Amino acid sequence: MSFSLYDISVPAFSRGLDTLSHLLDKGAAYADEQGIDHAQLIGGRLAPDMYSLIGQVQSASDAAKFGAARLAGIAPPSFPDDETTLDELRARIAKTQEFLRSVTPESMDGQEEREIVIRPGGRELKFVARDYIRGFVLPNFYFHLSTAYGILRHQGVPLGKLDYLRGAASPA
Amino acid sequence: MSFSLYDISVPAFSRGLDTLSHLLDKGAAYADEQGIDHAQLIGGRLAPDMYSLIGQVQSASDAAKFGAARLAGIAPPSFPDDETTLDELRARIAKTQEFLRSVTPESMDGQEEREIVIRPGGRELKFVARDYIRGFVLPNFYFHLSTAYGILRHQGVPLGKLDYLRGAASPA
Repeated sequence: MSFSLYDISVPAFSRGLDTLSHLLDKGAAYADEQGIDHAQLIGGRLAPDMYSLIGQVQSASDAAKFGAARLAGIAPPSFPDDETTLDELRARIAKTQEFLRSVTPESMDGQEEREIVIRPGGRELKFVARDYIRGFVLPNFYFHLSTAYGILRHQGVPLGKLDYLRGAASPA
Repeated sequence: MSFSLYDISVPAFSRGLDTLSHLLDKGAAYADEQGIDHAQLIGGRLAPDMYSLIGQVQSASDAAKFGAARLAGIAPPSFPDDETTLDELRARIAKTQEFLRSVTPESMDGQEEREIVIRPGGRELKFVARDYIRGFVLPNFYFHLSTAYGILRHQGVPLGKLDYLRGAASPA
C-alpha cells in the first residue's frame, strides 16, 4: 500500500486549515480576555519585513489552494487578499476548505510526472508534480501555519504544541 | 506511480536539515558582521516559554531521527541534547543526517499500517504509520524548521523565503 498525490496533499491541507482556525479562535479569546484589539492581534508579525498574521493566513490558504489546483490541473478560485478582520480571515479559511472539498482524488491520478512551473518572487521554478508537493508545497504550507502560531505565541497567546498538532491522532 | 513511506519522509528530512544548516550559516555570518554574540543568537526565542533556537534545532533533529526510526522499526541513536554552541548544533545536524543515510527504503516497505504509539508531553497518541508521518511527523518537523527561521528573522538576520525553500527545485 502506498500514497497517491491526493493522499499526501488535500487531507494535510484540510487538517492544517482546521488547526489554523483553532489557533485564531484561541487568539481571539485571549485578546478579548486581555483587552487586546483584534486588529493588533492579526497585525502582529515576527520581523518588520515579514508578513503579519493576516498575510500568514492568506499565504497558508494560497499554498493549499494553488497546491491542490496545480496537482489536479484545474483553475483555482481567485481570492483577492483583502481580509482586514478576524471574521474575514475565518471566511477565507472556510472558502479554501470549500474549494478543497471540490477537488477529487481521481483528478490527481497519474499526474506525478507532469511539469509544474511557478514564479515565486519573480524567480521561475520548475518541478515535476511529485517533487512540487513534497519539496515545495508542504514545507511552504507548514511554514505559514507555524509562523501564524509563532506570531500568536509572541503576543502572549497561551498555545501549546498540541494546539498545532491537534487532529494528528486520537488520544489513546 | 505513487509514494512509499520512505519517499515522503527521509528525503524531506535530509533536505530540511540541509536548509537548517544553511539558515544557521547565514545567522552566524550576520552575527559576526553585527558583533552579536553567537550565544545570544542561538539562545533567541519567540516567547519566554518556547524553545530557543538551540531547542528548535534539537527538536528538528529529533523529529527526523524518531520519525525515520519508528517508520523503519529500528532503534534510533541517542543524542543527549547537550549542545551549547553553534558548532555543536552543526554537528548535531550532521549526526542526524548520517543516521538518515543509514535508513534504507526497504526497511519501511509494507509498514504503512503498523501501529506507532508515542507520548509527547505525557499524553499517549496512537497512530498507524501512514498517519503518523503525514499528520504528525512532517507538520512537526517543519514547525521546528520554520520556528528556527522565525527566531533568526526576529533577531534581524536577512533571510528570504527562498532560504527556507532552497533545494525545492532547480531554478529554471
